[in-house]
Amino acid sequence: MTQTRTLRFALFLGLLVSSMNRASSDEGMWLFEHPPRQVLKERYGFDATDAWLEHVRLSSVRFNSGGSGSFVSAEGLVMTNHHVGADALQKLGTSERDLVAIGYHAKSRDQEVKCVDVELNVLMSIEDVTAKVQAAVKGDLDPPAAQKARQAVMNTIEEESLKQTGLRSDVVTLYQGGLYHLYRYKKYTDVRLVFAPEKDIAFFGGDPDNFEYPRYDLDVCFFRVYENDKPAKIEHYLTWSTQGVADQELIFVSGNPGKTDRLNTMVHLRFLRDKVFPLSLDNIRRREVNLRSFAERGIENARRAEDELFAYQNTRKARLGGLEGLQNPLVMKPKQAAEDELRKAVSADEQLRGEYGQAWSEVEKAVDVWRGVYDEHYLLERGMAFNTELFQIARGLLRMVEEKGKPNSERLREYAEAGLDSLKQQLFSEAPIYSDLETIKLADSLGFYMELAGADDELVMQVMDGKSPTDRAADLVAGSKLADVAVRRKIAEGGLAAIRSSDDPMLKLALLVDPPSRAVRKIYDEKVDEPMRQAYGKIAQARFRIEGQNTYPDATFTLRLAFGQVRGYSDMGKKLPPWTTIGGAFEHSAAHAHKEPFELPASWRERKDKLDLNTPFNFVSTADIIGGNSGSPVVNRAGEVVGLIFDGNIESLVLDFAYSDEKARATSVDCRAILEALRKVYDAQTLADELTGKN
Amino acid sequence: MTQTRTLRFALFLGLLVSSMNRASSDEGMWLFEHPPRQVLKERYGFDATDAWLEHVRLSSVRFNSGGSGSFVSAEGLVMTNHHVGADALQKLGTSERDLVAIGYHAKSRDQEVKCVDVELNVLMSIEDVTAKVQAAVKGDLDPPAAQKARQAVMNTIEEESLKQTGLRSDVVTLYQGGLYHLYRYKKYTDVRLVFAPEKDIAFFGGDPDNFEYPRYDLDVCFFRVYENDKPAKIEHYLTWSTQGVADQELIFVSGNPGKTDRLNTMVHLRFLRDKVFPLSLDNIRRREVNLRSFAERGIENARRAEDELFAYQNTRKARLGGLEGLQNPLVMKPKQAAEDELRKAVSADEQLRGEYGQAWSEVEKAVDVWRGVYDEHYLLERGMAFNTELFQIARGLLRMVEEKGKPNSERLREYAEAGLDSLKQQLFSEAPIYSDLETIKLADSLGFYMELAGADDELVMQVMDGKSPTDRAADLVAGSKLADVAVRRKIAEGGLAAIRSSDDPMLKLALLVDPPSRAVRKIYDEKVDEPMRQAYGKIAQARFRIEGQNTYPDATFTLRLAFGQVRGYSDMGKKLPPWTTIGGAFEHSAAHAHKEPFELPASWRERKDKLDLNTPFNFVSTADIIGGNSGSPVVNRAGEVVGLIFDGNIESLVLDFAYSDEKARATSVDCRAILEALRKVYDAQTLADELTGKN
Repeated sequence: MTQTRTLRFALFLGLLVSSMNRASSDEGMWLFEHPPRQVLKERYGFDATDAWLEHVRLSSVRFNSGGSGSFVSAEGLVMTNHHVGADALQKLGTSERDLVAIGYHAKSRDQEVKCVDVELNVLMSIEDVTAKVQAAVKGDLDPPAAQKARQAVMNTIEEESLKQTGLRSDVVTLYQGGLYHLYRYKKYTDVRLVFAPEKDIAFFGGDPDNFEYPRYDLDVCFFRVYENDKPAKIEHYLTWSTQGVADQELIFVSGNPGKTDRLNTMVHLRFLRDKVFPLSLDNIRRREVNLRSFAERGIENARRAEDELFAYQNTRKARLGGLEGLQNPLVMKPKQAAEDELRKAVSADEQLRGEYGQAWSEVEKAVDVWRGVYDEHYLLERGMAFNTELFQIARGLLRMVEEKGKPNSERLREYAEAGLDSLKQQLFSEAPIYSDLETIKLADSLGFYMELAGADDELVMQVMDGKSPTDRAADLVAGSKLADVAVRRKIAEGGLAAIRSSDDPMLKLALLVDPPSRAVRKIYDEKVDEPMRQAYGKIAQARFRIEGQNTYPDATFTLRLAFGQVRGYSDMGKKLPPWTTIGGAFEHSAAHAHKEPFELPASWRERKDKLDLNTPFNFVSTADIIGGNSGSPVVNRAGEVVGLIFDGNIESLVLDFAYSDEKARATSVDCRAILEALRKVYDAQTLADELTGKN
Repeated sequence: MTQTRTLRFALFLGLLVSSMNRASSDEGMWLFEHPPRQVLKERYGFDATDAWLEHVRLSSVRFNSGGSGSFVSAEGLVMTNHHVGADALQKLGTSERDLVAIGYHAKSRDQEVKCVDVELNVLMSIEDVTAKVQAAVKGDLDPPAAQKARQAVMNTIEEESLKQTGLRSDVVTLYQGGLYHLYRYKKYTDVRLVFAPEKDIAFFGGDPDNFEYPRYDLDVCFFRVYENDKPAKIEHYLTWSTQGVADQELIFVSGNPGKTDRLNTMVHLRFLRDKVFPLSLDNIRRREVNLRSFAERGIENARRAEDELFAYQNTRKARLGGLEGLQNPLVMKPKQAAEDELRKAVSADEQLRGEYGQAWSEVEKAVDVWRGVYDEHYLLERGMAFNTELFQIARGLLRMVEEKGKPNSERLREYAEAGLDSLKQQLFSEAPIYSDLETIKLADSLGFYMELAGADDELVMQVMDGKSPTDRAADLVAGSKLADVAVRRKIAEGGLAAIRSSDDPMLKLALLVDPPSRAVRKIYDEKVDEPMRQAYGKIAQARFRIEGQNTYPDATFTLRLAFGQVRGYSDMGKKLPPWTTIGGAFEHSAAHAHKEPFELPASWRERKDKLDLNTPFNFVSTADIIGGNSGSPVVNRAGEVVGLIFDGNIESLVLDFAYSDEKARATSVDCRAILEALRKVYDAQTLADELTGKN
């Protein structure tokens, strides 16, 4: 089967049309403030009105933990994927009750249980603050001063906006530095679990079927947002389509794609290919193997590790797909040609050459600096050497008290005033921390640190304190009290003095590591990030002037609108229809002898006779999506929910670098399957009625 | 549970007595020609007579594929582990009949099925040829000339011995170059499968329980060697103990430990710690993850990948245990102290200093050269860039015809005359080759190559031929005809001309890669291996003169005698008895809700009532073993079989670098459990009678 995948991939790329950054076909993760009106009009005769756009935007929800969702009732009901909700499910579960595995169904409002640390964001307004940012970062500043000025103005804009509006305010960098937009979000932090199916149907086919097609997954989960202990009243929510979609129908996806690299220069892409992706994959694989070893030792171990293990397996596949793209001349050559063309056009015009001609070599210079500090930045500042919640908490506490002592304009971006509430929500989360799991994670990552930085490195030796990574990890976790939220709060209140005088070994470690970690971050911020922002700003401007503004920026885990058609594709000469059916799930299970992860849950097996086996289950479309879009609603022209994004196929993984509609497909749960399952498998009539506006 | 493991490991090492290379306690993987008579006499009052030693040696069998075994009847019956036999089982299996999973039982001789490519070796004689080798490698030769002379004399000794005796003849390097012994083996290549249990009991507990204790595994497999199409008549075989062992009883292990690194210099060990082990682990993890992804896609995929997947999981754990030792000051500091002491003693004596004083810096110099060529040697010459049977075959054919054109004394060691038959047994093996499996293996390893050598490397680009690793792998596997043994034979007959004119893409790849591969091997052979042999030869001599000869060399996958006591140990304050019982297996299964890999096979569940649940199942002992010992017989003073080595505990993994009897234990199947299962679960009365001499 995997051969099929390999060959399929090969054939697909042979046909790839790299239409990078040109809005042909159904390409694009468009800004809501700059939608692809013209293409929609011309290709589909659809008029994207301001009212339509506003309605869809305000009905869309971002899961701060990394995912998308939507309001689907006036009573605050939120729909997302099971795998987006899994983090919350895992934290609500216990060794006796594994909610990820068995699911949950609140039959009445009072059974809706409050999640531990979920934050949802709704994008209320968008303001272009590019001019403000650029005015603060004057052209004659050297990089360190420019970086300082940029950080100051971004922190300040956010703080002022928060004070003015009371809304979460984020300055978002678009086009890698070409534009700066201020996004204001309404936040919901009282989020309660309403419904989740069993993992065996939500993630039917498991890791083997992940990123594959055909699929048969009920990857759905419902939450409800509350305000003042009552279901929030929601003005903008999506109504449920009674019809579902038709083949070739135009659909839209409103969600938060995480990160793409389509506009990177070739030098930058090659650095991703040679360093960033391989190192990340090595690290992901070792974490996956380590967690899996832990999980397989027992049932409770498996429950504790489950959500994190899925994340690594998922990311590993996605990264591998991306790396295959970077290593593929069929992807890279057209991108090289496009860059050559743009640079030629800039060179040919004296004014453009003067303003933007140096940008590409400026990126290259920044990449050279990056290469030199990459490992250290990855290990220390990104914390890969210390893979435990407890270290993240220790460092979070330390930096929070340190940064709060500074004027807002001088703080590290993530400790700026405007974001402090969200930060505290994480830092003081009551989510359980399991010392056995934390110990094996930390042991493995300390080993990774020793391997990558060298066993004889001065700081490595200080960190290890004369012990092996395994022994040191055991000491650190066993000795730390930071799993206790009360201890954390006390330390935060006690400030730097409390941290310095604490004998908590994890706090001591954070104190030891912080100066070198900040030092390497300073190099990164000043000599990599800042010059890149400036250079990419120039490249974006050059592109606007040569290619026009009918374009979209790379994904930044902020709200975007994608569109496309429900459409099957051909694979190895075989036509794959756009839909699977509920009956197909039973057949797929039988083909794998009903072995895990191809075993349907008892609830489905028992209700098989009741189900309409011809109900569409999952469908594919040409919409341009990527990781982060999980849980995005799929809506029709009328703005009704017709589906729920939960995956892309293998061929879609290269979308990180270039769009294609040949075989790359977004995979959704069909709205009809959701209703069918709610009514016939789960007896969730109340919920189904709420979705369809019957109550 | 893994926390338990972590803490256990920590406590254990706190108590570690590094008795490196001094025959205290039960330490040692002793040469049969230099047994630890004195220790055995003093500690256990046992007199290891020449007759006893000869009998045990001639009853011992080496599986050329990597494992140990023993003759257990006069009719050629051979006992080993299920996991040693698994390679043969996998090759005999089909998609309809997965022999690894379901086991096999030949109820009569005519049901004994011939294995595809198994070679067994029995060590018939040992001759010290150190003087002969050293005489050929004169002191004034430069390293390239010395390497050439050494290769020539070793090839020649082997060829002469083969001609003289007709026996497989291997010159074995002991003490990393201190001694050279000529081992002569009787070979058996008609090896037939007699009995294997189901994998679910042979490897009960699976990867999670591997290297753990307590264990409950029937990791046994029986073969029979044939000569002239009849069961071979065996003079020396081990009789079966009717009593089994008692607690504290002296036992012996006769088998082929693969590789230890106890005598390496500290510089050499640090190179293992910083480069060799981490890179190997990264590669193993990626292969494991890749194979597992493949295996989980379907039942037949799983069968095809099973044996190889186990090998990676097993090696990953073993390497990780080794690396933890190298990264642990509690292991490394005593080793450093021992080296300092030896060097001090050498320095203190003028004559010793003159003869041996430079040896340590010579090793260091060789390690420096090694570091510079390590990746290239690993990727090309060790073939890590081309992980497919098909490439191994292509290169094997190419080199065989090339080397056969040279005088024997000039050939690469593995193509020397004496080994050609064994080589052909592999090269023309009828074992099935699955193109789907080979494609995903090759794709991943080509990606590894591109990452490690660099995508812009000249040879990498030539190898990829303008394609991505995935596409290139698909082309290479789909285009090659080498899965067909007849094609291979034809090419071997056609010689170099046939290879050069072939359009088989795998042969073309082998031709492309061979010159640079040979070039880096030349550097390794001349500037790393040869100087190290010379330097380690000096260190060994220095050690003999200062510490005496009462010692043993590092493991070399040749026959060794270990000894020890049946003995439990304490773990986290809990006493672990030396035995588990058959009843314990049923309890262990229940504790894991009977979930795979903790589900006992139907045969055991059905016969539970018939079994004596108090029968000892697995036991631990202090014998000094390591990977390669799998399948070794455990014998008592009388030379009777009392058990079968199949594993070591986690704490034993550090034995690669230093022995300890505090918690490190070898794990065996008890001979009583084997009989109980044969008689009561498998109705294998004939086989049980043959073992116990009743027929």
